Amino acid sequence: MCGIVGMVGKSNVNQALYDALTVLQHRGQDAAGIVTSHGGKLFLRKDNGLVRDVFQQRHMQQLFGNVGIGHVRYPTAGSSSSAEAQPFYVNSPYGITLAHNGNLTNVEQLTQEIYASDLRHVNTNSDSEVLLNVFAHELAVRGKLKPDEEDVFAAVAGVHQRCRGGYAVVAMITGYGIVGFRDPQGIRPIVYGQRHTDEGVEYMIASESVALDVLGFTLIRDLAPGEAVYITEDGKLHTRQCAQQARLSPCIFEHVYLARPDSIMDGVSVYKARLRMGEKLAEKILRERPDHGIDVIIPIPDTSRTSALELANRLGVKFREGFVKNRYIGRTFIMPGQAARKKSVRQKLNAIDLEFRGKNVMLVDDSIVRGTTCKQIIQMAREAGAKNVFFCSAAPAVRYPNVYGIDMPSAHELIAHGRSTEEVAELIGADWLVYQDLDDLKEAVGGGKIKIDEFDCAVFDGQYVTGDVDEAYLARIEQARNDGAKVASQMVSAIIDLYNN
Amino acid sequence: MCGIVGMVGKSNVNQALYDALTVLQHRGQDAAGIVTSHGGKLFLRKDNGLVRDVFQQRHMQQLFGNVGIGHVRYPTAGSSSSAEAQPFYVNSPYGITLAHNGNLTNVEQLTQEIYASDLRHVNTNSDSEVLLNVFAHELAVRGKLKPDEEDVFAAVAGVHQRCRGGYAVVAMITGYGIVGFRDPQGIRPIVYGQRHTDEGVEYMIASESVALDVLGFTLIRDLAPGEAVYITEDGKLHTRQCAQQARLSPCIFEHVYLARPDSIMDGVSVYKARLRMGEKLAEKILRERPDHGIDVIIPIPDTSRTSALELANRLGVKFREGFVKNRYIGRTFIMPGQAARKKSVRQKLNAIDLEFRGKNVMLVDDSIVRGTTCKQIIQMAREAGAKNVFFCSAAPAVRYPNVYGIDMPSAHELIAHGRSTEEVAELIGADWLVYQDLDDLKEAVGGGKIKIDEFDCAVFDGQYVTGDVDEAYLARIEQARNDGAKVASQMVSAIIDLYNN
Amino acid sequence: MCGIVGMVGKSNVNQALYDALTVLQHRGQDAAGIVTSHGGKLFLRKDNGLVRDVFQQRHMQQLFGNVGIGHVRYPTAGSSSSAEAQPFYVNSPYGITLAHNGNLTNVEQLTQEIYASDLRHVNTNSDSEVLLNVFAHELAVRGKLKPDEEDVFAAVAGVHQRCRGGYAVVAMITGYGIVGFRDPQGIRPIVYGQRHTDEGVEYMIASESVALDVLGFTLIRDLAPGEAVYITEDGKLHTRQCAQQARLSPCIFEHVYLARPDSIMDGVSVYKARLRMGEKLAEKILRERPDHGIDVIIPIPDTSRTSALELANRLGVKFREGFVKNRYIGRTFIMPGQAARKKSVRQKLNAIDLEFRGKNVMLVDDSIVRGTTCKQIIQMAREAGAKNVFFCSAAPAVRYPNVYGIDMPSAHELIAHGRSTEEVAELIGADWLVYQDLDDLKEAVGGGKIKIDEFDCAVFDGQYVTGDVDEAYLARIEQARNDGAKVASQMVSAIIDLYNN
Amino acid sequence: MCGIVGMVGKSNVNQALYDALTVLQHRGQDAAGIVTSHGGKLFLRKDNGLVRDVFQQRHMQQLFGNVGIGHVRYPTAGSSSSAEAQPFYVNSPYGITLAHNGNLTNVEQLTQEIYASDLRHVNTNSDSEVLLNVFAHELAVRGKLKPDEEDVFAAVAGVHQRCRGGYAVVAMITGYGIVGFRDPQGIRPIVYGQRHTDEGVEYMIASESVALDVLGFTLIRDLAPGEAVYITEDGKLHTRQCAQQARLSPCIFEHVYLARPDSIMDGVSVYKARLRMGEKLAEKILRERPDHGIDVIIPIPDTSRTSALELANRLGVKFREGFVKNRYIGRTFIMPGQAARKKSVRQKLNAIDLEFRGKNVMLVDDSIVRGTTCKQIIQMAREAGAKNVFFCSAAPAVRYPNVYGIDMPSAHELIAHGRSTEEVAELIGADWLVYQDLDDLKEAVGGGKIKIDEFDCAVFDGQYVTGDVDEAYLARIEQARNDGAKVASQMVSAIIDLYNN
Repeated sequence: MCGIVGMVGKSNVNQALYDALTVLQHRGQDAAGIVTSHGGKLFLRKDNGLVRDVFQQRHMQQLFGNVGIGHVRYPTAGSSSSAEAQPFYVNSPYGITLAHNGNLTNVEQLTQEIYASDLRHVNTNSDSEVLLNVFAHELAVRGKLKPDEEDVFAAVAGVHQRCRGGYAVVAMITGYGIVGFRDPQGIRPIVYGQRHTDEGVEYMIASESVALDVLGFTLIRDLAPGEAVYITEDGKLHTRQCAQQARLSPCIFEHVYLARPDSIMDGVSVYKARLRMGEKLAEKILRERPDHGIDVIIPIPDTSRTSALELANRLGVKFREGFVKNRYIGRTFIMPGQAARKKSVRQKLNAIDLEFRGKNVMLVDDSIVRGTTCKQIIQMAREAGAKNVFFCSAAPAVRYPNVYGIDMPSAHELIAHGRSTEEVAELIGADWLVYQDLDDLKEAVGGGKIKIDEFDCAVFDGQYVTGDVDEAYLARIEQARNDGAKVASQMVSAIIDLYNN
Repeated sequence: MCGIVGMVGKSNVNQALYDALTVLQHRGQDAAGIVTSHGGKLFLRKDNGLVRDVFQQRHMQQLFGNVGIGHVRYPTAGSSSSAEAQPFYVNSPYGITLAHNGNLTNVEQLTQEIYASDLRHVNTNSDSEVLLNVFAHELAVRGKLKPDEEDVFAAVAGVHQRCRGGYAVVAMITGYGIVGFRDPQGIRPIVYGQRHTDEGVEYMIASESVALDVLGFTLIRDLAPGEAVYITEDGKLHTRQCAQQARLSPCIFEHVYLARPDSIMDGVSVYKARLRMGEKLAEKILRERPDHGIDVIIPIPDTSRTSALELANRLGVKFREGFVKNRYIGRTFIMPGQAARKKSVRQKLNAIDLEFRGKNVMLVDDSIVRGTTCKQIIQMAREAGAKNVFFCSAAPAVRYPNVYGIDMPSAHELIAHGRSTEEVAELIGADWLVYQDLDDLKEAVGGGKIKIDEFDCAVFDGQYVTGDVDEAYLARIEQARNDGAKVASQMVSAIIDLYNN
Repeated sequence: MCGIVGMVGKSNVNQALYDALTVLQHRGQDAAGIVTSHGGKLFLRKDNGLVRDVFQQRHMQQLFGNVGIGHVRYPTAGSSSSAEAQPFYVNSPYGITLAHNGNLTNVEQLTQEIYASDLRHVNTNSDSEVLLNVFAHELAVRGKLKPDEEDVFAAVAGVHQRCRGGYAVVAMITGYGIVGFRDPQGIRPIVYGQRHTDEGVEYMIASESVALDVLGFTLIRDLAPGEAVYITEDGKLHTRQCAQQARLSPCIFEHVYLARPDSIMDGVSVYKARLRMGEKLAEKILRERPDHGIDVIIPIPDTSRTSALELANRLGVKFREGFVKNRYIGRTFIMPGQAARKKSVRQKLNAIDLEFRGKNVMLVDDSIVRGTTCKQIIQMAREAGAKNVFFCSAAPAVRYPNVYGIDMPSAHELIAHGRSTEEVAELIGADWLVYQDLDDLKEAVGGGKIKIDEFDCAVFDGQYVTGDVDEAYLARIEQARNDGAKVASQMVSAIIDLYNN
Repeated sequence: MCGIVGMVGKSNVNQALYDALTVLQHRGQDAAGIVTSHGGKLFLRKDNGLVRDVFQQRHMQQLFGNVGIGHVRYPTAGSSSSAEAQPFYVNSPYGITLAHNGNLTNVEQLTQEIYASDLRHVNTNSDSEVLLNVFAHELAVRGKLKPDEEDVFAAVAGVHQRCRGGYAVVAMITGYGIVGFRDPQGIRPIVYGQRHTDEGVEYMIASESVALDVLGFTLIRDLAPGEAVYITEDGKLHTRQCAQQARLSPCIFEHVYLARPDSIMDGVSVYKARLRMGEKLAEKILRERPDHGIDVIIPIPDTSRTSALELANRLGVKFREGFVKNRYIGRTFIMPGQAARKKSVRQKLNAIDLEFRGKNVMLVDDSIVRGTTCKQIIQMAREAGAKNVFFCSAAPAVRYPNVYGIDMPSAHELIAHGRSTEEVAELIGADWLVYQDLDDLKEAVGGGKIKIDEFDCAVFDGQYVTGDVDEAYLARIEQARNDGAKVASQMVSAIIDLYNN
């Protein structure tokens, strides 16, 4: 998962892009980058680290221009090199820079195609570099000295025809404008909005509406699946549906965990969706165990707080903040001659015994992935004196890998892969485990005022909406993730640094 | 405010000190330092920045030894230099390093005394360097080649006789042990605890019990006012009351804001004290306006959450997380030729309109200091559609400066200084403002199972428990804080860097 | 002036390229870079600074591969940005990296052409980026999936047809090999050689033969004007004349000042050429003033030492090292509120009075450019007690700007521009000034065992061998150099940093 | 060997100290430091590295004050930590900072004494920290609130009574002035001088007179052995003989190798001394082999150039610069999985074949220590075609370790230790080896206009002028140098960093 932003402003956009990236920082803390354009020249700064660490005064004052794009990166398996920080750049045609959130599932085939058709060399393991070259090629074949919106939209259409997977993209065509587009299933989110200034209207494209809010922009709308928006440097905005068979199937995990609660995605308030998740959970609990005997509802901070509070309201049970989150996590250093120690969950979370002692506590988390943290937390609750420890997941059991840009473990590392709820409960040590039902989750997200029928729920049901993900593909990425392969690929990726450092 | 830690372990203590400092990081994000001792040599690393930024692998592997102390610093007026990061060092007698939380009120007199008596040069503006030299002098006059606990406790007694103010201190006497001590009023907190390992018992001294908890130490107890604890390098622990007229008057603001909720201070759970603050507030509200008409209680995250939740419970009103906190705050850069822009509170906090629209909302914060943020938040609530915006402070009106180590503005910058509740309400734009009553606050903190009669409540009532703070002193520090003076002193402090950088 | 190197080895070439760059460091101390290729991926490190500062262990261990190129940069007006460190990269076709020594005189026209023909965006002010794009375009139009030597040589031929100026180039075609080529006048130098190892023959291309020597390579020969050498990754070497009207006119200033004395250029030993310069000077002096009365010959270290020694030998006058060069030059800092002070020549050079007192001294320098340093040195000689100070320049009067890659001031800043020898003598304060005659210089360089008839002597005679340099061009670059323009261009160049930092 | 400087000026002295340190940089390239004093506060910057790397604009603008001292460090065995960069500081009495060139031979005893007498903790392995504490103690026992020159000179006298070895020292007493002093044998050099400015007279103390020259100061004189100079902050200068049995025995190696040729030491021009070394060598050669058959004299640059030129003059043989020194030496990196390669002398020196081919060459170096470089150079001369390679050392055979501050190998690593001239000649591969005779060297240095009878010539004759160096001491330092011990001590020293980094 990553965060993207693009802006056509009326004065320097560096500070606004920076601010937007801090608002989107929850989507990726691994690397950050901004590129701006002024007088036909590009100014770029990107590196590993948080936004506040990557951009210093000396960098900001070099990011000139009224147009620019930015990116924050979440580490995906094997791409931890600063050379793979985004935006990426190709110099032909026009000088194009691009930032991307998502994952392409046919990246190997594309890499071969772009070399064969255009002799385009790809230097990193990043699918974003491939996507950029595909887009660049599609734009180049139009052969225009000065590309207009028709050319840009045709290039996006070409991307849609050739690329498979989930992707939300912003790209800047040096000297012309910025374009944002979304995959034909609308798996990954992207919105745009405007802000009125004395010098005229400014536009921003971003992963989440909260970035617009905080910057004082008004949300216009989400891009539709397959749609593109093109904003010229002088502030003309064009949109176009560029896919032939677009159908909205957004990633439901955005609402479960990824997005900020104060974002609106495809018309749905993430906050409201989470309230409804709590509501649905309450109904299920009352259905399953009317005499549940729960004394207190305690969220695992921070994401599950909204659902947990509503769950407590609906059950009429006390809600308490029984865990305190340590906001300043440090590292575990390896001293010469010492073995590495495991960082205990204790350093992230501390229990307030008072709220546990002698009680039947229901812990609420947004989801359960590997189950290891979960198990430690239940153990902490017991050590704090809980009589019974129940556990509630606002999402259904996570059983399948994600292939559309969320960094999740491979199937065999998922605790619920091939296991029943009872088996998982036993493994994590819960006296009772409640998973959200998938239909309830869909209803919680898609059943409000704005209706959404279809979602990418692959991590829960194994159905991949792009239709091209088969056993062979999953086996290949599983292989790529396995430890040995990981080391090898990281070695290579660590040393690729074409663009200086 | 600062955080301190000291440890006598059975193997290298660097990682444990580092971990403890991350747990105490909320007490100071400005600078961090650790010094350890091994074979009669000291190993030190300190710098401005967060713990995770100051200590890298290369530093950690140089911090050898089973004994050490650490510090995190909160910026106080005029001491932002990395040269003033702690611990401080003097080479005579024995080589002593020291870290300190608090503030001395007679630092100028002490500076003159230590020069006159011992020709000791003080190079920074930090009162900690002065305190170290006083302690060093008191220890030196004992004249021992090998100091024992009697010498150490006599030195602490000497410090108590000469120093005024609030102070919690850890110091390391190279080759002998570490000592912790607390001012005779017990204004600033300090606890100690132990951990059993295969090699024997390890001891830790820290500002808050949560540091012990997270590291797996068992809290033994708080140091009593005026008391000292001395732990020799080989693990013998001694305690001694070193003040003649000790009387517990802890800083009540620790419970209001400074401490982590999961800490126990002087026997009182901070979490519980905050619950009781909510309870007391509910009673006052019901007393003052039985028909309050509040539709929803919304905390200003994070500190006030505990009080606000209990307030909602007691009032029987819905509790909702109507504000989302941005955890990744960036900077505002000054571009050449541009004026500095003010960072809006919007970048720290975002409202979820849904919870405000058409409602009478009661916002809850831990306290109101300058009132500026408060005013912006109320404005945000109105923009989000609130019908009426009520505001509740879990602490009484802050009307006087703090002189015991909390960095607060001078009197005239405090919004409640010389103003009634109604006047403050009008200034911040609240339709109704409720302050906690001071007696209620005292009861909330000191009226639980463990009774505490007396507190340092000076910021609320202007009574300074050390008895030496008069108008002249307050005028002097006010002067020192005024902008011009600040600049001058910062200039000097910025350039002092005796110990390299 | 810059230094370039390229190598096809049998094991990692990073250390060899690094060593070669240190040997070539005299050709440019402003920036350094290396790119290597392994398994189709490129690994690059470049930054401003000396070779020893730019490359640390962490960079070196990421520079994988048996093939690579490197560069050291001399600052030319307006190109001090680290973004303009070389090698440069374009991703299409094949991924090509390039490093260049020289200057193109038709860079503006080329920039327009490559955009028009190929939509290639150029992001810096560096003509090397333009040259790379021209070469890339010429290679791309061949349209081969796998380029062979015919394609490479055709591309070089295309470069020769389109580019004007002096250039010596190494480029790497990812996955295929490295190519070196030289402009059709052979203005800038480039040589290649080989080294036998157990794994087979390794090849190196470099600016000067000394880089081959020191690395244990045997010089094969200089590239002829217009010629290219192409070495495939598997070690096959091809050469080809790629220009239609090639004619050797090497830059004579290489022998005067730029090159190391232990280099052989176009068959001529630089050391020997300098000895002959001293010989010619002796003849001229004896011709001009048979009773010269010189007591001692003193070189201005380091370049002129060789000529001066031979001059002394021929005149039968004592040779003495009367000046000591300070090898560790520091900076002059600007303190707040202080005016900048001029760095005196004294901090670079110190006179040993003993060798001056009461004597007629003949100072010898390689050349006189602005004349300011020269004037101060003569003043130092007088203060050291010299009776008469004579001055000898091993080169003729520098009267015209250089346009082929040597960073020289514009015409009006040259002390000899429009002035007679006597006028210059008066300005610099010399009692007698002797310039080398241009014919003597040509004879010194081109009249040894290896004959060279024609040189680029433009700085002395204003004749530009590429035939395209007219008054308008010179006026344009003069304008670009004038202070105002310089600031503007530096501002832009300072902020261009496309490839991260 | 180190370089020291101190200055009492009429305005900020930071730039002057910086400039002086660059002039003294040849005395130590390992670390650098400056401390200044202003308004009773000290401002310090020190770190490992060259002067130009250690001091950046941000450091310089923090070095306030009209008084200060500086230091450049040559690495001595086991002291490569940046924590051991100088100046050092103790805070009592007065705050004293000190920088030192030399070595104490009774450092272990002193360390114990200062702990026993004053409980003074020494944290590094540096004898300078010990010397500082001895001086501080001697000054403290005077017990003055305001020390005057009598106190300072008494303290120096105390140092002379307790310390053994060679030492030249500058120290700053915060708020009072700077003091320079020299050991009673005058082993290490130190001079002082003055400069007139509009604001009054400024004074500088430095290791070599060249630092005064370059800064525009006039040399007043060398400090006599045992003498001290004290300059108060307001510019009053006092000198005093502080030793009871002072007798000049300066280190003769300063003239051989350490000092810059343009320095005057104890009244003797280093340049002239080197000329006379060449003269003496010529006499010896003519004595030993009247028909020497030498065709050319070639110096090993840079130090031997002066002697070699005069040798050539006297023999009437041609002098030629047959070796070119590479001024930009790089490192040899260790790549994962590769063995370390030895850096060949080739990367430092390159031969110009022309000057060797078919000739009898006499190479001249200042001295022969380990003999390894020497051997490689002779081999290079042969490969360049020399018929016979003769070798001349301007100093006698180095047979014993130095204990007065020059970092030399231990006895068994010295090629001439226990070997005859013929044996050394064979080992280094010279056809003929000529060492300077010790009496000739003494005459060359001490036999000019200024007579010096006695020198520290211990490295040549094993006579240690301080009288306290016996077999046991030498064995101990030899042990300390042996590889194993070195590693251990470096480990400790690497991790000591009391004063932050």
